[in-house]
Amino acid sequence: MSDGILVLSEQELRKFVRLDKEVIEKVELGFAELAAGNATVPPIMMLPVPEKNGEVDIKSAFIKGLPSMAIKIASGFFQNPDIGLPSQSGQMLVVSAETGFLEGVLLDNGYLTQVRTAAAGAIAAKYLAPDGIDTVGVVGCGVQARYQMEALMLVKPYKKIVMYSIDSEERKQDFIKDMKSRLDVEVVSAASGAEMAAQCGIIVTTTPARKGYFEADWVHPGLHITSMGSDAEDKQELKGAVFGKADVIACDLKAQSFRLGELRGAKEEGFVDDKTQVWEIGEIIKSGKSARTRADQVTVCDLTGVGVQDTMIALMAYEIAKREKAGITVPR
Amino acid sequence: MSDGILVLSEQELRKFVRLDKEVIEKVELGFAELAAGNATVPPIMMLPVPEKNGEVDIKSAFIKGLPSMAIKIASGFFQNPDIGLPSQSGQMLVVSAETGFLEGVLLDNGYLTQVRTAAAGAIAAKYLAPDGIDTVGVVGCGVQARYQMEALMLVKPYKKIVMYSIDSEERKQDFIKDMKSRLDVEVVSAASGAEMAAQCGIIVTTTPARKGYFEADWVHPGLHITSMGSDAEDKQELKGAVFGKADVIACDLKAQSFRLGELRGAKEEGFVDDKTQVWEIGEIIKSGKSARTRADQVTVCDLTGVGVQDTMIALMAYEIAKREKAGITVPR
Repeated sequence: MSDGILVLSEQELRKFVRLDKEVIEKVELGFAELAAGNATVPPIMMLPVPEKNGEVDIKSAFIKGLPSMAIKIASGFFQNPDIGLPSQSGQMLVVSAETGFLEGVLLDNGYLTQVRTAAAGAIAAKYLAPDGIDTVGVVGCGVQARYQMEALMLVKPYKKIVMYSIDSEERKQDFIKDMKSRLDVEVVSAASGAEMAAQCGIIVTTTPARKGYFEADWVHPGLHITSMGSDAEDKQELKGAVFGKADVIACDLKAQSFRLGELRGAKEEGFVDDKTQVWEIGEIIKSGKSARTRADQVTVCDLTGVGVQDTMIALMAYEIAKREKAGITVPR
Repeated sequence: MSDGILVLSEQELRKFVRLDKEVIEKVELGFAELAAGNATVPPIMMLPVPEKNGEVDIKSAFIKGLPSMAIKIASGFFQNPDIGLPSQSGQMLVVSAETGFLEGVLLDNGYLTQVRTAAAGAIAAKYLAPDGIDTVGVVGCGVQARYQMEALMLVKPYKKIVMYSIDSEERKQDFIKDMKSRLDVEVVSAASGAEMAAQCGIIVTTTPARKGYFEADWVHPGLHITSMGSDAEDKQELKGAVFGKADVIACDLKAQSFRLGELRGAKEEGFVDDKTQVWEIGEIIKSGKSARTRADQVTVCDLTGVGVQDTMIALMAYEIAKREKAGITVPR
């Protein structure tokens, strides 16, 4: 146990943890431990503040054998932009699994969540998406759309991005410019979701939509969809009928996806039920091979975000920072 | 919103927040808001680490109208004493209810929890215990036994403490010496629970017992008991039959007391059921008068600890520290 509590800034954490193959491996290990029954993941603690259109969510997971666990406090306050502040904020605590003592405070402002969420997208694509796809699609053009495209490049390299978004032209152009320089690929904006989908073998949806917009007739043989936008009971990106066209359905955590993710809407609309075969990503990882058995299968993966991802990335960041003697140490 | 995050040490927090009438008033207000339906209190998040006989518990509450809320991370790791560390540790985060941003990290090592728990004991006695009691009892001789006796003195002044404990003679003598100097009262140790109970009009139980030890035949007319030890499904201090002798039953939060407190055991043993009248302390506070209507009534209050207590004391500490310009401010 260290003598004090290590406080790390976003700047330091950005330096030590980047979206790369190592992070993806760590997050993959977290999902594998979850599937192996080695992780305790309590239900998300939610503190809604309806007066401010805000919510504070607390996620955590203990993974057997690891020296520490992370507790993440993440906020979304959607009136913040009116006063010039970002809607999203957050930080993680590192707590010793040996003594229960606080070891680290990671003031990442949500950065580690962005990275671990993108890493989960990469893992979904790695085990479900077809190989040899040149053109990939993304819905949305925000921060997570960018990270998802970067993460995908690490596991299924591609040559062109087709983006579809209802955001302003300015924001779309900013995305195009940014992704061209970050990934050295062709990036175009599609006028409609159908136009985007027709060109792409892999699509990642990254919007906070509250009503399914992804139509079943956008789906074509061989398509893989990762949907990471819905993480609340009132969110939905994929219309239920999309699941009616899927040959393989996967998610990060069934109990959570049926409550907060796409599977909630799909079940309400009658396209999945308790008997539908739904793989957890960790089960697929454990099997060691792709859940896709034919190139023409349609695969869908619903990601809601699980505490094991936070614990894996927080521990990685904390270990690197300790090694590098970074941060401020405050006495306990 | 402040520019950075205020990190406060245990030493600073001990200077700014003491167990006094102001703290009791704040905690009382928290319970009143809870009873008025103005507080959101999610279920406790529990992360057990059975390998180390440990557990990390997370409590929180949002109280409408307050500028911030607290999130408390409290650990109990019962192999720590083997390596020379305390079993209990903990800290609180202050999060803005306006923006969701982290505002403060209170590294109190559980001090604020000790104080707010004792404050709840004082409130229970204030609204349930008889007046004019000279001799009070306490079961246990640890830190919380001491705080409870200090808190009781603030609301129901007394002249003598009778302590009953199964701890070592050394620890009992330490308690006696400490309480004599802190409160200037007579303090004696009783050889049995029955001997203690026979002399006392008010008793506070403060042990982590896993099996009810408080016998129904220790109960006499007019006795008030506050039981604060049980906060987990496997703990119990009062035998169920004690509730069979109670005229007035109260607790801090019904849903929690029936799951983690004395009411769980009492229900299992058949002495209370869903139809039993059980007051929440906030309801009694709201009524503005004692729940005791006659001097010879037996009253029992079961305390498990509620997030509103943490939010009230954390905000108080944070506000004082800001005013006093204390602590370290780290950039977000």
